[in-house]
Amino acid sequence: MIRVGVDGMGGDYGPAVIVEGAVLAANDFPHLEIVLVGQTDALKRELNRHKVLGGKIEIQEAPEVVGMGDSPVAAIKKKKNSSIGVAVELHKKKIVDAVVSAGNTGAAVAASLLILGNLPGVKRPGIAIGTPTLRGISVTMDVGANINPSAEELFQYAVMAETYARYIFKKKKPSVGLLNIGEEETKGTDALKEAYKLLRDSHLNFIGNIEGRDFFTGKADCIICDGFVGNVVLKMCESVLEVCMELIKREVKKNPISLLGAWLCKPTLNAIRQQTNYEDAGGAPLLGINGNIIISHGISSAKAIRNAIRVAGELVANRVNENIMDGLTLNLNSRADTSSQSGPQLQEKN
Amino acid sequence: MIRVGVDGMGGDYGPAVIVEGAVLAANDFPHLEIVLVGQTDALKRELNRHKVLGGKIEIQEAPEVVGMGDSPVAAIKKKKNSSIGVAVELHKKKIVDAVVSAGNTGAAVAASLLILGNLPGVKRPGIAIGTPTLRGISVTMDVGANINPSAEELFQYAVMAETYARYIFKKKKPSVGLLNIGEEETKGTDALKEAYKLLRDSHLNFIGNIEGRDFFTGKADCIICDGFVGNVVLKMCESVLEVCMELIKREVKKNPISLLGAWLCKPTLNAIRQQTNYEDAGGAPLLGINGNIIISHGISSAKAIRNAIRVAGELVANRVNENIMDGLTLNLNSRADTSSQSGPQLQEKN
Repeated sequence: MIRVGVDGMGGDYGPAVIVEGAVLAANDFPHLEIVLVGQTDALKRELNRHKVLGGKIEIQEAPEVVGMGDSPVAAIKKKKNSSIGVAVELHKKKIVDAVVSAGNTGAAVAASLLILGNLPGVKRPGIAIGTPTLRGISVTMDVGANINPSAEELFQYAVMAETYARYIFKKKKPSVGLLNIGEEETKGTDALKEAYKLLRDSHLNFIGNIEGRDFFTGKADCIICDGFVGNVVLKMCESVLEVCMELIKREVKKNPISLLGAWLCKPTLNAIRQQTNYEDAGGAPLLGINGNIIISHGISSAKAIRNAIRVAGELVANRVNENIMDGLTLNLNSRADTSSQSGPQLQEKN
Repeated sequence: MIRVGVDGMGGDYGPAVIVEGAVLAANDFPHLEIVLVGQTDALKRELNRHKVLGGKIEIQEAPEVVGMGDSPVAAIKKKKNSSIGVAVELHKKKIVDAVVSAGNTGAAVAASLLILGNLPGVKRPGIAIGTPTLRGISVTMDVGANINPSAEELFQYAVMAETYARYIFKKKKPSVGLLNIGEEETKGTDALKEAYKLLRDSHLNFIGNIEGRDFFTGKADCIICDGFVGNVVLKMCESVLEVCMELIKREVKKNPISLLGAWLCKPTLNAIRQQTNYEDAGGAPLLGINGNIIISHGISSAKAIRNAIRVAGELVANRVNENIMDGLTLNLNSRADTSSQSGPQLQEKN
């Protein structure tokens, strides 16, 4: 049995949507136990509106709430009994195996860092997310936790994203691309140039630099970038389909035949919306933390929360963290091998 | 009469497409005189294939060519008689008023910097480009000349982009947004935080930070960012419509009614393609240079070259550089006023 703690007070729509999502998850995934963390009265009131058919939902009291506008680190340090803080504490004590939060992202990251800490060997955690492409889902990392990563941190994001793509999106030997402004290895910042070398010499299926135009085509299964570019690009992705649909809507209105055509296409357009809907991803794991943390969009629907809980369960079941550590160790060993090989060669020269 | 020098050897398709574009421009814009710069024989051969009805096209010999893979600065320093080098030299000598190149972008930038230098007061030139949005064209700057701009450089890009939007896209009081990972002024890198303050205190119509999701909606007339993010985002824009069309194509095939619907929508989809076609922009000015330089995509079609020549003419006719310098001076003066005002206040306190 896998137990998932859910920050019951987070998200733009408050407990109503979160609790509805938890009920959906409990009914659909009977192998999960859900612990809703937050103000018991509010959570109970919402829970009473729904029927929990299968699965199991408990409530864990946490009287305080971190607001969307609160300063993350200060809020976590001051509000010891906030829903996100208590949820992560339950994880630390192994009472739950994973935590889902749609609340203040910075606070979820801060609570994870302060309470759980990094996975051994990891320099900085990052947020990975599945983005829809012409060849299925790609994993983009980092999308906002670290806006100025070092080469080694970018390299570690590649190891983490590749593990996530393999175990959660079931990709075989996922390809890894470094998001850059040109394909040549001399392009970009110093950190990117150095990360290129680390990736080229690693066990990963590194396909080199990729460019903005490759993002939606699915050229790389894993797209590695700093959290600034990743965040801008992710938010563009979220809006792009709506913008295209709006453009189509405007244009077809000018021409009755096109209007009829668009009406006939409606089921197809809806199918595309569905395919690229961010609700399905449900949430993004904060990888590199010594725990399983899923961060959901503030505007998450109940369905998105359900899916975030599903992914949290999958992180645990697939032992993603152990596999990340194996990947990191593998590379450290192969780097050590290379440097011990170059040692004797140098001695021979002398 | 405005004279536009055109790098006849640049671009992925060589002189054939460039010369065809020059002929289109000469026929459509009789107020422009075009000087094709490159290997006379090759250019003459291409020119003979076309009828020049109006306008005027001359050829200026330049025996050397900078390749797409050449190292920019080294190529400009070594190949003194390259087509791009000679074209920019003609501009320096005021024999032409502007230069268009679809060749090696780095070489065009290097030639401009080495031969023409910066506009007085400008710290670093940047590339501005018109990107289609739901509310018409926005200007994004920088899209690749400067991957690590300072706050002051970002501020100057805002002044330049705003001038370009006003005089070339005829926007009244164009709004300026800083592309960031959140709307709060505390978000992003130190350079962005500092640039936020400079913009807030300036004469510009600054609307604050904008996010990736605002890019295509046209929330800001001018989108200011570093050249790394700008380049990634621009290349995403270039691919996004094709990706959407491919998604629609795939899905409608699954359903005969949708297939009929899509067929009826074809003229509309083509109209959207047209609206968002990068051929129409034609090229992107390198602003901040003491001259008028238009950089075109390597894959430019003849139509794109024609439009780049048109924009080059508009830069000159609208005295965009003079207007940029006025904008920069206006802000320097208002900053000086503010600091002289704060001076006496301090004295009073003492």
